[in-house]
Amino acid sequence: MAERYEIRFSGAGGQGLITAGIILAEAASIVEGKNAVQSQSYGPEARGGASKSEVIISDAPIDYPKATQVNACLALTQEAADKYSVGIKPDGLLLLDSDLVKNIPQGDFKVYQFPIIRTAKEDIGREIVANVVALGAMVALTDIVSYEACEQAVLSRVPPAFKELNQKAYETGFKKMKELMK
Amino acid sequence: MAERYEIRFSGAGGQGLITAGIILAEAASIVEGKNAVQSQSYGPEARGGASKSEVIISDAPIDYPKATQVNACLALTQEAADKYSVGIKPDGLLLLDSDLVKNIPQGDFKVYQFPIIRTAKEDIGREIVANVVALGAMVALTDIVSYEACEQAVLSRVPPAFKELNQKAYETGFKKMKELMK
Repeated sequence: MAERYEIRFSGAGGQGLITAGIILAEAASIVEGKNAVQSQSYGPEARGGASKSEVIISDAPIDYPKATQVNACLALTQEAADKYSVGIKPDGLLLLDSDLVKNIPQGDFKVYQFPIIRTAKEDIGREIVANVVALGAMVALTDIVSYEACEQAVLSRVPPAFKELNQKAYETGFKKMKELMK
Repeated sequence: MAERYEIRFSGAGGQGLITAGIILAEAASIVEGKNAVQSQSYGPEARGGASKSEVIISDAPIDYPKATQVNACLALTQEAADKYSVGIKPDGLLLLDSDLVKNIPQGDFKVYQFPIIRTAKEDIGREIVANVVALGAMVALTDIVSYEACEQAVLSRVPPAFKELNQKAYETGFKKMKELMK
């Protein structure tokens, strides 16, 4: 693993991106014993529609907890893609919702796309778990925590009645991404 | 308002302290138009029982998003009080759950206490809203955002069926704290 790995989840408010960040940070730290910082910054632009959440994971203590060079970025909306793909490091990764981001940001990063929100709606039956589909996909894409560690973190964060739904969403996102990467 | 104001919510995992931090950050930024950063750091100690969430609020952009000198700290458990009252700045504020923190940390800060979790259980009827009782108390104590701004942020974060419960928890925490400060 790299010394310091930064992941950004971006989209619109209400899409559960903070929760996705918290689960990933808990998978890395509580389950895998690494150091992690999860944060959201709100500037004057917070009143707009785009929203982001960030996770930094490191084997060493994290002195500077602000994202500086993003290794991997998710964008679920066009506005988020336009705004938050800036700052991805050279050879970084950008995962987009293919239905909602038609204008693909240009830069020195690899772009992957699939209909994340539609997958949540049609394959899982609940659009609300799009964040967990995206989380599964980001774990597959980055390999920053193990499949099992993050699955455990997902299951420990959701109420009992929603465990099966979220487990399915996580697994589906992970598998779809692995297919894309073949 | 001070240039930079730092608030720490600490207690045990599962007490909703991250949510309290997110709501406060949203009240400051989305409602009041200030800058805010909300974060949780997980070190190797994250496997233990104590947990914290931090909010930095400023009129200016926040360059260094790690808490350095905490203006106000909440501790809902003894372990959290022991661990996270360190770092409170001189003349800072420490709010404790009076049932659960019997051994009061010593330092150059003002200590306030009331039975926060018992208030949630007995006055509101649901222990789960102890985080929102605490949030109301912290708003009263710090005056860092207006009563109304944070109330709006609480209501926009909770599902419709739980709005009344959370509104009552928030108001109760705020009023109990104001009584203590008289």
